[in-house]
Amino acid sequence: MNKKRRAVILLSGGLDSATVLAHAAGKGFECCAISFNYGQRHKVELKAAGRIARHFHASQHFIVKIDLRKWGGSALTSSIKVPKNGLKPGIPVTYVPARNTIFLSFAVALAETIGAKDIFIGVNSLDYSGYPDCRPQFIRAFAKCATLGTKASDQGWKFRIHAPLQHLTKAEIIKLGTKLGVDYSITHSCYDPDPEGRACGRCDSCRLRRKGFIEAGVKDPTIYTK
Amino acid sequence: MNKKRRAVILLSGGLDSATVLAHAAGKGFECCAISFNYGQRHKVELKAAGRIARHFHASQHFIVKIDLRKWGGSALTSSIKVPKNGLKPGIPVTYVPARNTIFLSFAVALAETIGAKDIFIGVNSLDYSGYPDCRPQFIRAFAKCATLGTKASDQGWKFRIHAPLQHLTKAEIIKLGTKLGVDYSITHSCYDPDPEGRACGRCDSCRLRRKGFIEAGVKDPTIYTK
Repeated sequence: MNKKRRAVILLSGGLDSATVLAHAAGKGFECCAISFNYGQRHKVELKAAGRIARHFHASQHFIVKIDLRKWGGSALTSSIKVPKNGLKPGIPVTYVPARNTIFLSFAVALAETIGAKDIFIGVNSLDYSGYPDCRPQFIRAFAKCATLGTKASDQGWKFRIHAPLQHLTKAEIIKLGTKLGVDYSITHSCYDPDPEGRACGRCDSCRLRRKGFIEAGVKDPTIYTK
Repeated sequence: MNKKRRAVILLSGGLDSATVLAHAAGKGFECCAISFNYGQRHKVELKAAGRIARHFHASQHFIVKIDLRKWGGSALTSSIKVPKNGLKPGIPVTYVPARNTIFLSFAVALAETIGAKDIFIGVNSLDYSGYPDCRPQFIRAFAKCATLGTKASDQGWKFRIHAPLQHLTKAEIIKLGTKLGVDYSITHSCYDPDPEGRACGRCDSCRLRRKGFIEAGVKDPTIYTK
């Protein structure tokens, strides 16, 4: 009989969520991964998510199809251009309205259905301080919401939303993942890959990834076109 | 120039959400309706949603496709049978895990994108006291979450989640809607309609609807097969 506690892991296919899955698996959870085909321009990340889920023996991997291009509102889900000239202060145009609220709500639905009380998400408040849905106060508010809006409240337990990367720099995340056996060559971060799925090297996500590997002193396995 | 404030209205096609749309329109909002094709067995409700949106001149009507049958967990999204023998205490098997959390998260994404600060939902804590995601404490927690997880928190304003039916009985809802000009013959409530879309008359939703019309002293326009 499998006595492992179940957890749901939000898995984008990027560096952060790969590290989170490794972390949750390392803590002894039976990991059920969930990814989203939401109309993102970098849909190639879903192939990476599949590779990562297999690598860490996720018990299941759901890919949920939703279409956030219906109303757009972000450079990742509309024809707005992905900025290539470096990070700027404020909320970037790559912010997708309420994306993590949507992703977490599906994770809660799945968790409630399969009997998991723990949800892991790779949000980080240092690198993307501009994304409102990556902040600790949002994650705390969502956890409360998840408990109140499900059977948890009737059964007297609480959902736990784990954000183990919340206060780490990209370099610290890479060091942690390297220790946990993450093969970063199978992850994908770029917002605007070429048709072959290769990283552009100039979007915010590529810049943060590249800088992270340099600062961590870990060899960057990514092939950047620029 | 249209100076109306925009609002997003969750519109299932049922009696409650039709009344909510009428209420929001009556308050002078420019109403953008959002409905969900989530794999529900009573998908016929979406046709009703379309009729209601047109009737009340919704400025837009989005039908979002998501597949909650992927993991099921409810009589509405799996092969679990819809109960026909009357309402029981506790959480009914027709409860769909985290459904309102998911629906509201899409509503927030849409609202943030179109510049709406008001979201209307037809939850009610009297009739469906068993559904955890229909309770006032959940709605309050979600509103906080919506504000913290979006640009609202940076721009210094708050999302308002209106649940005008929260403390009304079904009879009171029907009386209110009748006053507001809702044509209930174009709404659909049944969880388990026949292939022609006719109401079964015996599921919880039909029972509540039927009883509501009787108690309101309003003629029930529904055709029930039993």
